[in-house]
Amino acid sequence: MANFGLSDLRLVAPKEGWPRTGAYRKGAYAAAAGATYLLEQAKVYESTRAAIEDLTFVYAATARGRGQMKPVVLPAQAMPETAQRFIHGEKHGVLFGPERTGLDNDDVALADAILTFPVNPAYASLNLAQAVLLTGYEWFRAAHGDIPPFDVEMRSPPATREMTLAFFDFLENELDQRGFFRPLTKKPVMARNLRNMFHRMTLTEQDVRTLWGLVVRLVEGPRRDPKKQSRKKTAEPTSSQ
Amino acid sequence: MANFGLSDLRLVAPKEGWPRTGAYRKGAYAAAAGATYLLEQAKVYESTRAAIEDLTFVYAATARGRGQMKPVVLPAQAMPETAQRFIHGEKHGVLFGPERTGLDNDDVALADAILTFPVNPAYASLNLAQAVLLTGYEWFRAAHGDIPPFDVEMRSPPATREMTLAFFDFLENELDQRGFFRPLTKKPVMARNLRNMFHRMTLTEQDVRTLWGLVVRLVEGPRRDPKKQSRKKTAEPTSSQ
Repeated sequence: MANFGLSDLRLVAPKEGWPRTGAYRKGAYAAAAGATYLLEQAKVYESTRAAIEDLTFVYAATARGRGQMKPVVLPAQAMPETAQRFIHGEKHGVLFGPERTGLDNDDVALADAILTFPVNPAYASLNLAQAVLLTGYEWFRAAHGDIPPFDVEMRSPPATREMTLAFFDFLENELDQRGFFRPLTKKPVMARNLRNMFHRMTLTEQDVRTLWGLVVRLVEGPRRDPKKQSRKKTAEPTSSQ
Repeated sequence: MANFGLSDLRLVAPKEGWPRTGAYRKGAYAAAAGATYLLEQAKVYESTRAAIEDLTFVYAATARGRGQMKPVVLPAQAMPETAQRFIHGEKHGVLFGPERTGLDNDDVALADAILTFPVNPAYASLNLAQAVLLTGYEWFRAAHGDIPPFDVEMRSPPATREMTLAFFDFLENELDQRGFFRPLTKKPVMARNLRNMFHRMTLTEQDVRTLWGLVVRLVEGPRRDPKKQSRKKTAEPTSSQ
């Protein structure tokens, strides 16, 4: 629930009571992985009917039909509708049943629609946590947009086209001098293919500098930087190698 | 994995060895909830690199950026692409890290793209099972279509429009006789609203018969069915009430 921005947890007649005590309490808090406010805000009701009285639309999450003629919808259809109605002040709810037994038919009868999941029919049963997770996931996508919590990490600004094209010119000139483009009639198509390969990298400024340096090294052979070598010598006396 | 039709489980250097023995084995089989073929088919590799050698594209699932410039994609973007490429014989894989530590940076470096999930930034961390579930869910939707495993259960065929309209005529005639439509100038709009209410029920043949009987009862008062009463009398002698 916390992963996907849901907070209105309602419990119907919890078997072990609520709030939990002793070992039950410890287990519930450990499982909440930090989202303990959900446990503290949870509301307890004596009946399902009492729990949903203020809602305008109720889904019953179930993995199988119940012989009750109700629309059957998937979370990816239901949650966009719920998010849309939420904006207009409506409150929708989703009923989930106990882990072992699921919702009983009287609970399903209280709902407007059946919420189910697209699954492999040979292994159709999701556990309670999985069903809540998928519902929350689709709620979040619908209500908050399908946006990653972080983006590509750019170590450097994207290269301008001018910079990229200057590198291509440099590279192709070096390759030309070394007879890379053979037969010469194929040069235009070979060059175009090369440029497309590099474009697929969506190069940053730093990428272009790195590639330029790489080509220089391949062309010129081992680096001979007299300034750097002399500086090294003054800093630390080593065997020149 | 089984819920969403995935079967190619690859394990890299499992800490406790594989196949599991003793209590570890028992725990793994219990957690598989029937999908033990996944455990039996699992392949074990010594390194991540060895595990992905035959793949053409690899996602690294992670909840945070890793200072590595890679595309960041969501399962709902990635899995349709993966399903599309799969049709053309390509094999894509998703790397998941150990529960506590997640993938290390060298594993992430082996991937083409980072796979992450749209979550509430305040509670961004999903556990391993949740991350696999959401990835499998989007794979199944992309590869097998977003189709519920069962449909509305129709107890009866949908009513033909002829049947529904006949009921409306009957109902409106009864209401008209009892002065329901007041002022009479409003009758057309009142009747239209009524019809729309019933249309929203997407009536079955049985529904129309039930509603028809309901109106008859409301109009005629308590049932007096001599045939049924007489049959009842012969079957069981009761006080006539």
